[in-house]
Amino acid sequence: MTAIPLGPGPEFDRIRAIAHRLGLAAGHLGDDCALVPDGPGQLMISTDASIEGVHFKRAWLTPEEIGWRATAGAVSDLAAAGARPVGVMVALALPADSADLAPGIMAGAGELVHECGCVILGGDLSAGPAISIVVTALGRAVRPASRKGGIPGDGLWVTGALGGSRAAVADWEAGRAVGAEARKAFARPVPRLTAGQWLAANGAHAMIDLSDGLAGDLRHLASASGVGAEVDLAKVPVHDAVSVAAAHGPPAAFAAQGGEDYELLAAMPSAFEDADAARFAADCGIPLTRVGALTAPGPVVFRHGEDLLDLSGFNHFAGP
Amino acid sequence: MTAIPLGPGPEFDRIRAIAHRLGLAAGHLGDDCALVPDGPGQLMISTDASIEGVHFKRAWLTPEEIGWRATAGAVSDLAAAGARPVGVMVALALPADSADLAPGIMAGAGELVHECGCVILGGDLSAGPAISIVVTALGRAVRPASRKGGIPGDGLWVTGALGGSRAAVADWEAGRAVGAEARKAFARPVPRLTAGQWLAANGAHAMIDLSDGLAGDLRHLASASGVGAEVDLAKVPVHDAVSVAAAHGPPAAFAAQGGEDYELLAAMPSAFEDADAARFAADCGIPLTRVGALTAPGPVVFRHGEDLLDLSGFNHFAGP
Repeated sequence: MTAIPLGPGPEFDRIRAIAHRLGLAAGHLGDDCALVPDGPGQLMISTDASIEGVHFKRAWLTPEEIGWRATAGAVSDLAAAGARPVGVMVALALPADSADLAPGIMAGAGELVHECGCVILGGDLSAGPAISIVVTALGRAVRPASRKGGIPGDGLWVTGALGGSRAAVADWEAGRAVGAEARKAFARPVPRLTAGQWLAANGAHAMIDLSDGLAGDLRHLASASGVGAEVDLAKVPVHDAVSVAAAHGPPAAFAAQGGEDYELLAAMPSAFEDADAARFAADCGIPLTRVGALTAPGPVVFRHGEDLLDLSGFNHFAGP
Repeated sequence: MTAIPLGPGPEFDRIRAIAHRLGLAAGHLGDDCALVPDGPGQLMISTDASIEGVHFKRAWLTPEEIGWRATAGAVSDLAAAGARPVGVMVALALPADSADLAPGIMAGAGELVHECGCVILGGDLSAGPAISIVVTALGRAVRPASRKGGIPGDGLWVTGALGGSRAAVADWEAGRAVGAEARKAFARPVPRLTAGQWLAANGAHAMIDLSDGLAGDLRHLASASGVGAEVDLAKVPVHDAVSVAAAHGPPAAFAAQGGEDYELLAAMPSAFEDADAARFAADCGIPLTRVGALTAPGPVVFRHGEDLLDLSGFNHFAGP
């Protein structure tokens, strides 16, 4: 590891401690500007904030998980664009009495970027009234996907299973024990980078990551594409952890309104079928499930048996 | 202005209000990822946080000034790299009872990027315990400058005049009236983009922007370059607003420890002389003053008459 070019002072000692903990994951910490490596494809950028008391509670997570989760949220936007990550900038603010959390939080961010094959390019360290991590992620896409471009008749497909992250929050809020899988869904989400690149390369018309929940993010995709949508709740893949927490209603409705799963929702051409989804599963190691279709311009509806539900999007801490 | 591709909801109404207020300064607000335009030179990136109670107090500034100042701080890092700005990402967090400040703050960010010839590429809007703006600025430099590269014998040159921003803070903290020029130095700093590109093109060995003050930032530059430095306080250009506020010591010492002036400090080859500085002033419209020189590896000292002072760097809210 190269020396960090900083003068004396406690703020800079803290940056040196972070660099030490990060080891080789550190890019150019200590310089005001970082160089962004060149490469093929169009450069894309996304910024995401993760703030104590809004996006997580301190008691729920280790410092490493706080850093991992915040970084995963920003990198997940790159996944939905079909991009490969290049690097991230991390702006960390901490209360003065919690300054010793910085190396752990940054180590978690470092683990996530290592997992994703990129690096921490640089960042900013500041005092603040609560733990706040703002991650800006850079990636490159040969054929960038966005929320726009879906057309009536496109199938709506989701990766993985939904609702695990919300199940963890519901259990924490209710004072129940949180199962290992639900906790992992909330604390260590894995950006679907391979899946996003696969779907973009296989003709996705539009794509979005599920940070606001299927109900909320499908509305964004439909609005951006200028179309309507219909989802069959019976088809929504529900995370195993949902059953207990969702006692107050249909598990699929709970899952469709669960935020921060960081799975992907893709509008695929109508010719994309179950055999293609099987190919996806073999290539990417996670399931891909058809949950509905885009329709002519109109509302976004969720079919539950004979009923049509108007599900709202995810609301932080709204409970089950 | 194109429509913002977002579904219904109060968070998204707020983003729509921001986009409306920004008008043509808005890039791709509402998408998770933004495209970074291509161009010549090496891409550089910098992130800076501006947090209420740490970097400013709400009572001191209008919402527009809060946005301008936060954005100027990040763009100033590009100036010190000799880069031209391409665009910025703005992550804004606000307390729930202050959500109506968002359009004004973002309008201020928009004014700054318009002044700098770039755009707001995208961002993030979130709840938080205090006003927090994290700005990530992207730029391109044909010949990037950094803190590293200074050698013994290099002249140390600063743009503009120092201490204005600190004078404003000192007056506010002491309950004194704040003069228009001091207020402007704090509230509406102008990144020295033309100056940075000029100095890089004219052979700067190393460069840094004065966010931590001359005393602090010169230590960063010297440390990164592996050299020592000597500054003659009698040569430091002191902002007109400093005289009254600095009654407790030499105005030049006050100015050298004043943070957030966002002027530039450059280590220029020894052949760079006053005639070159006159050429700089004619081209860039601001003065360039030689305040000292880099020396063989050793301490960073400030000469005050016969005395050698060991000035500390800037400390937010430490007072005069």
